[in-house]
Amino acid sequence: MTTASICTIGDEILIGQIVDTNSSHLARALGEIGIRADRMVSIADREEDILSTLEAELRRNPIVLTTGGLGPTKDDITKPALTKLSNSPEMVKNEAQEAIVRSILHSRGLDVLESNLMQAMVPSNCEVIPNRFGTAPIMVFRFPEARFGHAATLYAMPGVPHETLGMLPEVIEDIRAHNALEPITHRNLMVYGLAESALAQLIAPWEEALPADMHLAYLPNTLTGIKLRLSVYGGDEKSAESRFSAQIKALKEILGSRIYSEQEDRLEAVIGRLLRERGESLSAAESCTGGEIAHLITTIPGASDYFLGSVTSYAISVKEKVLGVPAETIREKGVVSADVAEAMARGARQLTGSTWAVATTGLAGKEGDGINEGGTVWIAVSGPGGTVSEKRVYHNDRERNIERFSASALDLLRRCILGEIHG
Amino acid sequence: MTTASICTIGDEILIGQIVDTNSSHLARALGEIGIRADRMVSIADREEDILSTLEAELRRNPIVLTTGGLGPTKDDITKPALTKLSNSPEMVKNEAQEAIVRSILHSRGLDVLESNLMQAMVPSNCEVIPNRFGTAPIMVFRFPEARFGHAATLYAMPGVPHETLGMLPEVIEDIRAHNALEPITHRNLMVYGLAESALAQLIAPWEEALPADMHLAYLPNTLTGIKLRLSVYGGDEKSAESRFSAQIKALKEILGSRIYSEQEDRLEAVIGRLLRERGESLSAAESCTGGEIAHLITTIPGASDYFLGSVTSYAISVKEKVLGVPAETIREKGVVSADVAEAMARGARQLTGSTWAVATTGLAGKEGDGINEGGTVWIAVSGPGGTVSEKRVYHNDRERNIERFSASALDLLRRCILGEIHG
Repeated sequence: MTTASICTIGDEILIGQIVDTNSSHLARALGEIGIRADRMVSIADREEDILSTLEAELRRNPIVLTTGGLGPTKDDITKPALTKLSNSPEMVKNEAQEAIVRSILHSRGLDVLESNLMQAMVPSNCEVIPNRFGTAPIMVFRFPEARFGHAATLYAMPGVPHETLGMLPEVIEDIRAHNALEPITHRNLMVYGLAESALAQLIAPWEEALPADMHLAYLPNTLTGIKLRLSVYGGDEKSAESRFSAQIKALKEILGSRIYSEQEDRLEAVIGRLLRERGESLSAAESCTGGEIAHLITTIPGASDYFLGSVTSYAISVKEKVLGVPAETIREKGVVSADVAEAMARGARQLTGSTWAVATTGLAGKEGDGINEGGTVWIAVSGPGGTVSEKRVYHNDRERNIERFSASALDLLRRCILGEIHG
Repeated sequence: MTTASICTIGDEILIGQIVDTNSSHLARALGEIGIRADRMVSIADREEDILSTLEAELRRNPIVLTTGGLGPTKDDITKPALTKLSNSPEMVKNEAQEAIVRSILHSRGLDVLESNLMQAMVPSNCEVIPNRFGTAPIMVFRFPEARFGHAATLYAMPGVPHETLGMLPEVIEDIRAHNALEPITHRNLMVYGLAESALAQLIAPWEEALPADMHLAYLPNTLTGIKLRLSVYGGDEKSAESRFSAQIKALKEILGSRIYSEQEDRLEAVIGRLLRERGESLSAAESCTGGEIAHLITTIPGASDYFLGSVTSYAISVKEKVLGVPAETIREKGVVSADVAEAMARGARQLTGSTWAVATTGLAGKEGDGINEGGTVWIAVSGPGGTVSEKRVYHNDRERNIERFSASALDLLRRCILGEIHG
């Protein structure tokens, strides 16, 4: 299997000012085309560190990706270091990048300074992939076998995350074009509502019967559940597709609507698509999740087409006055109860006139309230067919519990919209 | 300056399944005691990689911290690798850790298995800092000068973030106790409402007059503004404190209430403290921030003491019906306007009976609405003295704009509570 090193360059990472999220995205993108990230290294903006690290990594692996250190300020020294590393006799202007630099500055109403134009100057011994999202081009250095004991390629990418991620597909395309990679095909299935161990047990017979060249990975996440990634190494994409289909059909028979998507996806995106297809609308009433459900729903562009709004009812008075939860229900059943969750969902639906409403009431912290232990939540969904509620208990810290509460409420909503659960 | 390497061990990082957040925390904690993180390396759960990387890093730096690979499953091989690295002749039981293992399993109602007890077995050539938050102890290996060319210490910590961070203070304490570090003292000041460049310009005369041994760092963050960190190298803590006081007094005269805290803190925590002191309460009405403000406020433990609730009014009908925004205001001024923001804030205050209410209406995405450009927000605060509103325009992506809108609304609220701004 082809291997790669990922290097991030920048003092801001080493002093702990920012968390490096680029490396994780790069590793995943490499994995998708069958390249294993072998090492990730973060180093400071210091020439000797950059040179010694890159030489060591190029000796170790045939592909090295760097991000960072390409800005126009004095502390960004990746480009001079790469000029040295590649023994480039001169700097040359890249016309395509210069045009982009001018257009970016123009759109921001800024004058074009000499320091801006310098961004389009690159060492003569590199190829350029123009950066459509910023001023620093991607530089590709191809080293002959004699230099590091094997043919090696270095891709120097900008470190600003939206530029790195925006340009990543073109870098991956260049890597595919220049390397004889074993073809690898993936299919993702998003599963919600099962712990990893329970899922593994449930699908064990199916997993054991998988052909030897088909590989299964479990990728869990608090907000999105478990991504099952099925990979086939070798063969062409078409034959892989037909082989996937049979396996996925069998898996669907076991898991049913626990599979909420066949793409890399989020519950709130799937819910958005369902509501849009049906011309239906949604509202929310949140207590312990404190706005997180509304926040998740509204991170989806175009959510205003189906999301009418929500009430965060932290105080009992707001539950009663705004959502119309009867005072006696709260008194008799307690705030954290099925009846209150259901009354909140009905109240939000009535208040906004939405087709569906989802509600939460619980204890996000570790402390219990004497009746319920910390981490308990009642989630409810109200819709055209009635109102349902379910209880969940999680044992995480406050922020993680809020995420889990929100995700399980969204999943209950999804299953209600699909008609799997009726009030 | 003493330097250190930080190594994370685990396949899950190299396949991009999780983002390494531990390294950033470790680097910051080291920086606080005057140690510079020189390199961060992430490697897979493979013995040869672990051994060769740790040897290289121990040769490079006198302090190496590792996280990860200490779980009880087969793929966690950091402990056997460290046994080899340290030439430990045998494994010995650590009684303190075994007691913790038993107590953790007991509290979860689980039986104590042989594999659990193995967690308390450590190579004989290490010292142990018992892990109060999990089953894997922290192992400290002290290597003599002869081994790597200088005395070197390796701290092997667990990788589960709440365990790593929970035990970090004890590791830092051990590092302080065993190294002759130049004493370093810090003071943090949290500033909101100024861009980094504007802040730098404003305080330039003050900054230039700082004594040579006093260092200033700007640490910006979307949600919390800019942290100004003032450091003194050398001298004792007491004399540093009195020297800080004079500088901070001068800085406060320049920045006034732009400084919202003298601790590492968040706007929503400061607001919580202010409201609690005054016995006042808060509600919110959110449009474009879609629940993020309520979410931020309710991540603070005990927020239910002052936060009554909020309405996310995505649909115009919810703005009108629930918050009582007059239809003609929306028609005449547009949804994204000072008048609508102020009417929303007044509506939330009336609906919940809170002392204060904060509101947002704007365009989080990049697209404009024909009148306002994308990234425009009107924020409003209503309180006992009246209602105020301010406009902001940001040019980030949707999620980042939502964060900036929310943080600037919270900052306006803070300044209103302090009486700096009146309606």
